[in-house]
Amino acid sequence: MADQPLFAPRGSTDEVEEGRALAPKFDADGLVTCVTTDARSGEVLMVAHMNADALAKTIATGEAWYFSRSRRRLWRKGETSGHVQRVVEMRVDCDQDAVWIKVEQVGPGACHTGRRSCFYRAVPLGSRADATVMLEFREAEKAFDPHEVYGGGSTPKSDS
Amino acid sequence: MADQPLFAPRGSTDEVEEGRALAPKFDADGLVTCVTTDARSGEVLMVAHMNADALAKTIATGEAWYFSRSRRRLWRKGETSGHVQRVVEMRVDCDQDAVWIKVEQVGPGACHTGRRSCFYRAVPLGSRADATVMLEFREAEKAFDPHEVYGGGSTPKSDS
Repeated sequence: MADQPLFAPRGSTDEVEEGRALAPKFDADGLVTCVTTDARSGEVLMVAHMNADALAKTIATGEAWYFSRSRRRLWRKGETSGHVQRVVEMRVDCDQDAVWIKVEQVGPGACHTGRRSCFYRAVPLGSRADATVMLEFREAEKAFDPHEVYGGGSTPKSDS
Repeated sequence: MADQPLFAPRGSTDEVEEGRALAPKFDADGLVTCVTTDARSGEVLMVAHMNADALAKTIATGEAWYFSRSRRRLWRKGETSGHVQRVVEMRVDCDQDAVWIKVEQVGPGACHTGRRSCFYRAVPLGSRADATVMLEFREAEKAFDPHEVYGGGSTPKSDS
């Protein structure tokens, strides 16, 4: 990160919030949060993380790169599945600890379970306060077979 | 969290990803990530965090509650500004460490800087690799005066 010339050092609150220099606030693990939405439908496809390298590569290439917390390594979205994400627009939030990318999702879906979006279940509101909340599937069917796409030998894992 | 009957204990990967019980994966700080979008426009308004209490209160009341990491306390969105968020739908992601709420934002905006959305600046793609990235304002004007709304004495802070 120190040798990453794309990013400015963190300045005052006013500089970070009202300025034009990109000065990301990486957390203790060196990560910012990334929200990825479908550029056409607006649907949230996934929430993942980027380290300095992933953020720099995404900016430079216009394709989504993340940092996998479970595998502890840089990860080009779609490197195994072919389901890459072309970034149409990137935004950064007020305190610069989160980015939002609008993408064209190549292939049938973004989620390692085989769905278009990772957010395929709804949480009903106003649930009884003394019982476990039961989720409602909004997208039960799989858009692709994850075992076929990721290989039969390994169970695909979430990388969020 | 232990006395929170709304949440099931974490089960197997298959139970968490394909089951119907809400079993949130709180991180080391006891938080899940929350992405908040405008139910009408689809725009991402903010990214924040919820602890078990905030998640339970949001589910029970249908209004957005968060946990402020900077102030280390439960926080009802709009408690100071009046800019509350009515939750139209809540989703949870595959491994249940993130939620997505679609909200009706009451008042002019969600961001403590006075904008509608916290994501008011774009990060240009394909930037020169040897120079600081310069952001482009997409929503420079403020929808409200934060000092007026939050009180002149205190500078409003980001709570993401």
